[in-house]
Amino acid sequence: MKILMTGFDAFGGETINPSWLSVQRVCHECTDGLHLIGACLPTEFSASLATLQQLIETHRPDLVIAVGQAGGRSAISLERVAINIDDARIPDNAGWQPIDEPIHPAGDAAYFSTLPIKAIVHALRSEGIPAEVSNSAGTYVCNHVFYGLMHLCRHIPGMRAGFVHIPYLPEQAAKLPGTPSMAMEIMVRALTLIVRTALDTKTDAHLSGGTEC
Amino acid sequence: MKILMTGFDAFGGETINPSWLSVQRVCHECTDGLHLIGACLPTEFSASLATLQQLIETHRPDLVIAVGQAGGRSAISLERVAINIDDARIPDNAGWQPIDEPIHPAGDAAYFSTLPIKAIVHALRSEGIPAEVSNSAGTYVCNHVFYGLMHLCRHIPGMRAGFVHIPYLPEQAAKLPGTPSMAMEIMVRALTLIVRTALDTKTDAHLSGGTEC
Amino acid sequence: MKILMTGFDAFGGETINPSWLSVQRVCHECTDGLHLIGACLPTEFSASLATLQQLIETHRPDLVIAVGQAGGRSAISLERVAINIDDARIPDNAGWQPIDEPIHPAGDAAYFSTLPIKAIVHALRSEGIPAEVSNSAGTYVCNHVFYGLMHLCRHIPGMRAGFVHIPYLPEQAAKLPGTPSMAMEIMVRALTLIVRTALDTKTDAHLSGGTEC
Amino acid sequence: MKILMTGFDAFGGETINPSWLSVQRVCHECTDGLHLIGACLPTEFSASLATLQQLIETHRPDLVIAVGQAGGRSAISLERVAINIDDARIPDNAGWQPIDEPIHPAGDAAYFSTLPIKAIVHALRSEGIPAEVSNSAGTYVCNHVFYGLMHLCRHIPGMRAGFVHIPYLPEQAAKLPGTPSMAMEIMVRALTLIVRTALDTKTDAHLSGGTEC
Repeated sequence: MKILMTGFDAFGGETINPSWLSVQRVCHECTDGLHLIGACLPTEFSASLATLQQLIETHRPDLVIAVGQAGGRSAISLERVAINIDDARIPDNAGWQPIDEPIHPAGDAAYFSTLPIKAIVHALRSEGIPAEVSNSAGTYVCNHVFYGLMHLCRHIPGMRAGFVHIPYLPEQAAKLPGTPSMAMEIMVRALTLIVRTALDTKTDAHLSGGTEC
Repeated sequence: MKILMTGFDAFGGETINPSWLSVQRVCHECTDGLHLIGACLPTEFSASLATLQQLIETHRPDLVIAVGQAGGRSAISLERVAINIDDARIPDNAGWQPIDEPIHPAGDAAYFSTLPIKAIVHALRSEGIPAEVSNSAGTYVCNHVFYGLMHLCRHIPGMRAGFVHIPYLPEQAAKLPGTPSMAMEIMVRALTLIVRTALDTKTDAHLSGGTEC
Repeated sequence: MKILMTGFDAFGGETINPSWLSVQRVCHECTDGLHLIGACLPTEFSASLATLQQLIETHRPDLVIAVGQAGGRSAISLERVAINIDDARIPDNAGWQPIDEPIHPAGDAAYFSTLPIKAIVHALRSEGIPAEVSNSAGTYVCNHVFYGLMHLCRHIPGMRAGFVHIPYLPEQAAKLPGTPSMAMEIMVRALTLIVRTALDTKTDAHLSGGTEC
Repeated sequence: MKILMTGFDAFGGETINPSWLSVQRVCHECTDGLHLIGACLPTEFSASLATLQQLIETHRPDLVIAVGQAGGRSAISLERVAINIDDARIPDNAGWQPIDEPIHPAGDAAYFSTLPIKAIVHALRSEGIPAEVSNSAGTYVCNHVFYGLMHLCRHIPGMRAGFVHIPYLPEQAAKLPGTPSMAMEIMVRALTLIVRTALDTKTDAHLSGGTEC
C-alpha cells in the first residue's frame, strides 16, 4: 500500500504551516511497514492542483490524504465534502483571488470524501485526541485541492482520498489571543492514526451521529 | 411573481421555532404588491419534503425561500450549498434519525442555491442587519429540505430557490447562557429584504469575498 | 425616588454607542412615576468620573445605574465587582492609555455592586431577555467609572449603584462578522426592567448559582 | 528560594485534573537548583484552604503558585485578582455549594496577585505558548483558594503568590466537541517558565496593555 500525504506552505501572513510541518514528521517517524510519501503543495489555486496531479501520476498511491491548516478550530477536522467553488477571502500566495468561480465548470457540484471519516473520528477520540466531522472545507485553496483531488479519483479506480484540517500550532496561537491550538506531537499522532484507520477500514463504520442543524 | 416561503415547527426540546414565526409575520405584513404564500413544514425528514413538494405543485411559485433555525449562530445565514446526505445528531419530530444516508441515492452530490446570496448579504448589511454566506446547512432536516427543494427545481424551469438559516429568538437564548440571538423585528425585516433582493437581482452580484479557509 | 442612569459616547472606532442611545430612550419612554435622569459620560478615564461626580452632587440620586458597551457579549451583563486598576488596550477618547495604574492609589482593591444582580438576571430571563452575572467589567473606562462610582457611594448613605454592560447593536455587528448583537427595543426593555427590579428589591434574592470555574 | 506549587483533584464529572498532573510533572522534572514543593488541594471550599494554610506553615515558601483547571479556555491564564465571594454553579467535592457568600466576612473585597503577570505573559508568548492576563478567576473553589492565599500573604512578609488557570488536556476535550485544549508538555513548559520568570522579576514589567472593555 502506497500512501501520499500532502501539506501546504505558509499563507495569510503566517511564517509556518502546521500541515506541512506535521506531514513531514509523520513521513519521517512512522515508516514501519508503510510506504508513505510526503509532499508540500503551494498555497495557490492553480499550482496546488497541478502539483498534486503530478504527484499522483508519478507515485500512483492507493490512498491520498491532503492536510491543511484551519486556523481557529480546536480539533482535527475530517472533511466530509468538497464543493465546486472557489471564493477567496484573501489572495493566494500567487496573488490570485477568485470570487465565486467554479473549480471545474463542467464538474459535479460536490464530491464526498472516500475516507472512513466516522471511524477515524472514533479512533482519534478513543486515543484522547479532539476530532470532529466537518461539513465544510471552506472555499479557499484547501477546498480547491480537496475538490480537485476527488475529481481526479473518478479516473483512478481503487484510489481512496480525503482531506483533513488541523488547528494552529501553539506558537501561532500565542500571537492570536483567544485562539485554540494543538501541539505538534498530537497532530503527528493524529495523522498517523488517520492513515492506519483508513488502511484498516474499508467502509465507514457509522459509529456516531451527525453535526449541527 | 408568486413567492413560497416556508418555516419549520419546533424541534429539539424547543417550544417555538423562529423560522415559522417570522415567515408568518412576513406573509401578514409585507403584502404590498407581492404574492406571498407562507407554510410551515414539519421537522421530519420524510414529511417535510412531501409537504414542500405538494405546496410547489399546488402553487407553482416563481421563487421558494425555505427558512430554518440555526441555534447558536448570530447572523442571518444565506446557505450556499445543499449536500446529498442525512446525518442526524438527534431524532426528528417523527422519531427518525438517519445516519449517513443519501437523500436521493441517485441524486447529485450537492446543489447550489439559485438565490443571489452575495447580493442579499450585501443588502442586509447595508440595512444594518448581521448577515453572512454559510457553506454548510448541516446534515439535519434543514439541509434535507434544502437539497430536496433544489432537486425539485431541476424539473421546474424558471423557479429559483434557496435556504436561509436564522438565529434563536432572545426568549430562546434567555434559557441558554452565552448563546447569541436576534429579535423578531430584525428577522422580519431581513426576510422581507431577502425576498425583494431576490426579485430585483437576476444573477449574483459578486459583491464580496468568500469565507474561512 | 430619583434615578440617575448614564451611558457613554462612542469609542474604539465606532460611531455610535448603544449605552447612551438606549439610556436616552429609557429616559424618554418610561417616565410613569419614575424620576429618571439620563446623562452621557465621555469615554475618557479622567473626564468620565469628574462628570459622574458632578451629576451625583447636582441630582443626589437614590439609585445610579451606569451602562456601557461590551462588544462581543450576547447578553445583558450585570457586573458584580469593580477593581482598582486601569489597564487600557486602546487609548481613551482623550488619547490617554493607562497601563496597570490604580484608580485610587489608597482605595480598596475592589467594590461590589449594590444592585440586586441575581434578582435582576432572574427578572430579565423571566421576560425572555438574555442576561447574566459578569465577574469582570474589564479594566478600561467602564470599570474605571464603575469603581469610581462605588468609591463615591461610601460617603453617600443610602445611595445604591451598579454597572450594566450591553451588547453591540445589530448595525454595529453587521460590520463585524460572527459578532453577537441585541436589538435596541430589547435593550430598552431590559434597562427599564433593571430599574424597576432594583427599586423593588432591597437585598439580593440569591435566585441562582454562580459563574464559571 | 523555596517554591510551593499546588494543583487540584478532579471535579465536575472529570476523572483527571490537569492542574495537579502538570504540577506533579514540574516538581519531578525541573529540579535544577530550585526547591520546589508540589501539593494537591481537594476541590472543596473548606478543606482546600485549610490544606493550603497547613502547607504554608509547614514549608514557609518564598513563592506560592496555585494552579487550577479552567475548562473552555485556550490559553494559560495569569489571574490578576481574587474577589471575596463564593458563588458555586455546582457543588464542590464535599457536596457544598455556597451562593453569594463572602470568603472572609471582614476581609477586603479583593486582592491582586503579587506575581509579575505581565512579564510572565510576555515570557510565555515569547516561547510560543498561548498566554493571557485574566481579570476573573470565577467564584468557585479556584477563586476561593486564590483569595484565601492572598489573605494569608498579609501576615507573611516577603511571600509572593498568585493563581494560574490552565486549559483542559486533549483527552478531556476529546469528549467535549468544540472545546479547546492544551498538551501536557506545553503546560509543564509553561509552569516551569512561570516559576523562573517570577523568581527573576521583582516588579511587573508592564510589557503589554490590558484586556477587553
